[in-house]
Amino acid sequence: MPTQSPVTVLGLGLMGSALAAALLKAGHATTVWNRTAAKTGPLAAQGATPAVTAKDAIEAAPLVIVCLTTNDNVRALLEPEATALKGRTVVNLTNGSPAQARELADWAAAHGITYIDGGIMAVPQMIATPGAYILYSGRDEAAFATHRETLSALADTKWVGTDPGLAALYDLSLLTGMYGMVMGVSQAYALIGSEGIPAREFAPLLTDFIVAMTHGLVPGGAEALDSGRHLTDVSNLAMNRQAFANFTSAFNEQGLRTDLFDPLQDLLDRAVEQGHGADGLSRLALLLKKD
Amino acid sequence: MPTQSPVTVLGLGLMGSALAAALLKAGHATTVWNRTAAKTGPLAAQGATPAVTAKDAIEAAPLVIVCLTTNDNVRALLEPEATALKGRTVVNLTNGSPAQARELADWAAAHGITYIDGGIMAVPQMIATPGAYILYSGRDEAAFATHRETLSALADTKWVGTDPGLAALYDLSLLTGMYGMVMGVSQAYALIGSEGIPAREFAPLLTDFIVAMTHGLVPGGAEALDSGRHLTDVSNLAMNRQAFANFTSAFNEQGLRTDLFDPLQDLLDRAVEQGHGADGLSRLALLLKKD
Ligand SMILES: NC(=O)c1ccc[n+]([C@@H]2O[C@H](COP(=O)([O-])OP(=O)(O)OC[C@H]3O[C@@H](n4cnc5c(N)ncnc54)[C@H](OP(=O)(O)O)[C@@H]3O)[C@@H](O)[C@H]2O)c1
Ligand SMILES: NC(=O)c1ccc[n+]([C@@H]2O[C@H](COP(=O)([O-])OP(=O)(O)OC[C@H]3O[C@@H](n4cnc5c(N)ncnc54)[C@H](OP(=O)(O)O)[C@@H]3O)[C@@H](O)[C@H]2O)c1
Repeated sequence: MPTQSPVTVLGLGLMGSALAAALLKAGHATTVWNRTAAKTGPLAAQGATPAVTAKDAIEAAPLVIVCLTTNDNVRALLEPEATALKGRTVVNLTNGSPAQARELADWAAAHGITYIDGGIMAVPQMIATPGAYILYSGRDEAAFATHRETLSALADTKWVGTDPGLAALYDLSLLTGMYGMVMGVSQAYALIGSEGIPAREFAPLLTDFIVAMTHGLVPGGAEALDSGRHLTDVSNLAMNRQAFANFTSAFNEQGLRTDLFDPLQDLLDRAVEQGHGADGLSRLALLLKKD
Repeated sequence: MPTQSPVTVLGLGLMGSALAAALLKAGHATTVWNRTAAKTGPLAAQGATPAVTAKDAIEAAPLVIVCLTTNDNVRALLEPEATALKGRTVVNLTNGSPAQARELADWAAAHGITYIDGGIMAVPQMIATPGAYILYSGRDEAAFATHRETLSALADTKWVGTDPGLAALYDLSLLTGMYGMVMGVSQAYALIGSEGIPAREFAPLLTDFIVAMTHGLVPGGAEALDSGRHLTDVSNLAMNRQAFANFTSAFNEQGLRTDLFDPLQDLLDRAVEQGHGADGLSRLALLLKKD
C-alpha cells in the first residue's frame, strides 16, 4: 500500500506514462489523466487511480505533474482549471522555451498556483535509472524543497535557480550540444562509410576522440568565455579555418553533401575576417549573437 | 649519444618541430630541414643535424618524415628529389584527403619509394605524451613494421590498412566528429550566455551530457549502420524533428543566429519526408550522400 504523498500526472504519452509508473513504484498514491482515456489502462493495472476529467485528477493531489507535447497544450489544458489548481504546485515537465516557462509562471502566480518548470534529461526508458536527471527552476524554491523527495522518484533532481526559464534554458543548451555532436557523428559515419569501412571498426576511435576533445574543449572554453581571454597557442581559428577547407573538399571527393558543415566554414571565415584569427574555438560562441 | 636508427624530418613548423624534438629525445640521430632555414636553430641546439638542402637531409636517413602545410607543398618538395628518395621510406604526416594520399602513393611507387601516409591525432604540445596517437596506412605494411618503433617516439601508432588513403580518411572522419561537437558546444554556450549565466557553471553538465550521449549514440549508431536496422523505440527522427523546432525558436527568442543548426532541421525534415520518421538518428549518415 502506498505510504508516500499523493501525486497527479496529467498526460500519459511515452514520457508521462514512465513518470507515473516510477511514482507508483516508489509507493505514491498516483492519480492519472490523459486526453485519450485508453492510455490510463496499463497504469491502472500498476495501481494508479484513473481520473475521468483533468479537474478530478488535479483535485486528488497537492502536486500536479504535467507532461504533454508542447507548452501550448499545457496552457490550453490548465487555463480552464485555474480554480482547481489554486494552492497546488504544478511541475511542468513538457519541453519548451525559457520564454514559455516564464509566461506559464506568470499566469500561475496570477492565480495563486505554485509553478515549477522542469527539463527531463532522459528518454522514457531511462526514467528512475541511474544517470537520468531532471532540471528544475521556479520562483518558489521552498515549494521545490517540499516536493523534492517525491520528484526524486523520477530521476535525480537538479535545481538551477529561481528564474522559471532556467530549466528550459539549461535543457535546450544541453540538447543543443548533443545535436552538434550528432551532426559530427553523422558526417563522420558518412565519410567512413563512403569507403565501405564498417562503422563498428571506426566507432571506438570516434567515441574516444569526441570524449577526449569534449573533456578538453568544454572546460577550457568556459574559462575563456568567462574571462574574455580567447587567445590560444594550441589551435587557433586561422589554422582551423585553413584545415577546414580540407574537409569540404574531402566530403566532395567522397560524394558527400557538405551542407551540415558549410555554416561552420562561414563562421570561421567571419571570425578571421573580424580579426579573431589568433583566438581559440571558444570565440565562436560570441559570434552567434545576432547583429 | 644517439644509438637509435637515424631519421630525417622535412618541415619544421609547429608540428614538424615537435616531431623532431620527440625523435631527438628518444635518442635518434635526427637530420632536419626547413624551407626557412632559421627554424632549424632550436632543434640544432637539442642535438639535431641541420641540412642545407632537402636532398642532403633525405640522403642522411632511410626514414624521411614530412610535415608541411599541405600535400601540394609536399608534392612540390618531393618530386624533384625522386632519385634521392629511391629505396627510402617517406612517412607523410601532412594533413590531406584520401585522394591526395593515394596520388602521392602512386607517384612514390612509380619511383621505387616506399610511401606511408599518416594522420596526427594531437596538437604539437601533445606529441610524445600519453593519449596522442598517429594513424598510418600504406601499401607496404612490412615497411611500417620496420619503422614502427621509431615512429612510436612521436605518439602511439595505429595502423589502419594497406589502402594509403585510409589514414587521411580516419583522420578527417574523427576531426569531423569533433567539429560537430564544437558547433554544438559553441551554440550551447551562446544560449547559456544569452541569459548571463557563467559558462563555468554550465560546463560540467555540458561535458557530462555530451560524453554520456556520445557513449550511447556512437556505438549504437554503428550497429544500426552495419546491420541496416535503424528502427528505434527510444528517440526517433519524427520526434527529434518536432523537438528541433523548439531549438530554432529558442535561439531566435534569445537573440541568437540559427545558421549552424538550420541544415540539421532541413536534414530531419528530409528524413521524415522520405519515410524514415520511425528510424533513429543513425539514419542521418545515409542521407548525407549526394543524390
Ligand atoms: N520521449 C522522450 O524521449 C522525451 C525526453 C525528454 C523530454 N520529453 C518531453 O516530454 C513531453 C512528452 O513527450 P512524450 O514522449 O510523452 O510525447 P507523446 O508520447 O507524443 O505524448 C504526448 C502527450 O501529450 C498529450 N497531448 C497532446 N496534445 C494535448 C492536448 N491538446 N491536450 C491534452 N493532452 C495533449 C497526449 O495525449 P493523447 O494521448 O490524447 O494524444 C499525450 O499524452 C514532450 O514535451 C517531450 O519533449 C520527451
Ligand atoms: N598544429 C597542429 O595542431 C596540427 C595537428 C595535427 C596535424 N597538423 C598538420 O601538420 C601539418 C603542419 O602543421 P604545422 O602546425 O606544423 O604548420 P605550420 O606551423 O604552419 O608549419 C608549416 C610548415 O610547412 C612548411 N612549408 C609550407 N609551404 C612549403 C613549401 N612550399 N615548401 C616547403 N615547405 C613548406 C613551412 O616552412 P616555412 O617555415 O619555410 O614557412 C613550415 O615548416 C599540417 O598539415 C597540419 O594540418 C597540425
